[in-house]
Amino acid sequence: MKTLEVWIEFGSTYSHVAVQRIEPLAEAAGVSLRYRPFLLGPLFKNVGWNDSPFNIYPDKGAYMWRDMERLCRKHGIPFQRPSRFPRNGLLAARVALAGEDQAWQVPFIRGVFMANFALDREIAEPECIAEVLREAGADDPQHWLTRAGEHDIKTRLRNDTERARARGVFGAPSFFAGDELFWGQDRIEDALSWP
Amino acid sequence: MKTLEVWIEFGSTYSHVAVQRIEPLAEAAGVSLRYRPFLLGPLFKNVGWNDSPFNIYPDKGAYMWRDMERLCRKHGIPFQRPSRFPRNGLLAARVALAGEDQAWQVPFIRGVFMANFALDREIAEPECIAEVLREAGADDPQHWLTRAGEHDIKTRLRNDTERARARGVFGAPSFFAGDELFWGQDRIEDALSWP
Repeated sequence: MKTLEVWIEFGSTYSHVAVQRIEPLAEAAGVSLRYRPFLLGPLFKNVGWNDSPFNIYPDKGAYMWRDMERLCRKHGIPFQRPSRFPRNGLLAARVALAGEDQAWQVPFIRGVFMANFALDREIAEPECIAEVLREAGADDPQHWLTRAGEHDIKTRLRNDTERARARGVFGAPSFFAGDELFWGQDRIEDALSWP
Repeated sequence: MKTLEVWIEFGSTYSHVAVQRIEPLAEAAGVSLRYRPFLLGPLFKNVGWNDSPFNIYPDKGAYMWRDMERLCRKHGIPFQRPSRFPRNGLLAARVALAGEDQAWQVPFIRGVFMANFALDREIAEPECIAEVLREAGADDPQHWLTRAGEHDIKTRLRNDTERARARGVFGAPSFFAGDELFWGQDRIEDALSWP
C-alpha cells in the first residue's frame, strides 16, 4: 500500500481544509496516510518573517480569509474565522507526535483544527488540548499532556521541522509521495495519484 | 452571457498554465473571457520586493519549477524552463491592450506565453513580439508595435495595474467574476462556476 506523508501545522488555515477532506480521498485512492506535525515558525524565521505571511501581506491575508470561506463551503467543512491568528500549534504538534501509534491520533488532529478554525478555541492551552484528546477517544488526556513535554518528543518535533525544511518544505500543508513534494490542499488529488 | 476577467502578467509562470487551459473550460461553462494584461512589478515593489518572490525565496522557487513541469505535463501544455526569469512583460502587455478588439488578441496572448515558457524566447524584444503578432494573424505587426507605444495605451496599462491593486490583486493569474476575486490557475474552475 502506498503511503503519503501529510505535513501539517496546527496554526495553518489551509491545513484545516486538507485534514478535513483528505481521509475519504485517500481511502478511495488506496493510499495510507502518515501525519507529520511540524512548525512553520522556524521556517518562516529562516526567510525573515516573524509572523504569518498572511499578516505581513494584508492583501494576501484578506484574500486567504475569503478563499477559506468559499473552500470550506464548497467542501462542507465547518469554518469560522478565528479571533486570533495564527495560534501557536506547538503543544498540539507535540501531543500529535506522542500519539503516533494511538487510535486517537487522527481524530485528535482533525479535532484540533476544528477547535482552531471552526470553534475559535485557544489550541495553545492545555485545557483545550485535553478536551480535544478526550473527544478523540484518549482515556487519559493528562498522561498525554505530560508525555508531550518529555525530551524525546520535543527533540523529535524540532528534528522533524528541520528535516522538512531540508527536504524543501516552505509552507503547509505539504505532502510527500516518496521524495516528491506537493504544496497546498489544492494538490491533494495530484499527490494521492502520484505514481 | 457571464464574463470572467482574466488578469495576466506575461512574465508569470502560472499565467502560462492559465491561458493555455482556460479557453475550452470557459466555452464549456458558457462564460466569455476578457483578458486584462497588467504588471506584477509595481505590486511587488509595493510590498518591498524588487524581484519575483520565486527568486527571493529559493525553496518556493525550486518547488514552483517542479510544480510547473508536473502541471504542464498533466494538462498537455508545452513547457521548458526559461533561461531568464522573470522576463519583462511590459511590451507584450501594451500590445495585448492595443489589440483588445482584434481577432489576433487571444492567439497573441497565448503565443507570448508559449514564446516565454515553451520556446525560451526574449519576449521583451520587439522582434520577438512582432513574430508572435504575425503568427497570431496580425497583418501589420509594426503598426501594433507603434500603437503600443502611444500615450493612451501606456496610461491605460498603468491605470489598470493600479486598479488591480486597488481591487485586492496581489499575484497572477487572478480572475474576477463580478467583484469576486480568485487567485491562481487552480481556481479557474471555481471562478468559471461562480454564480
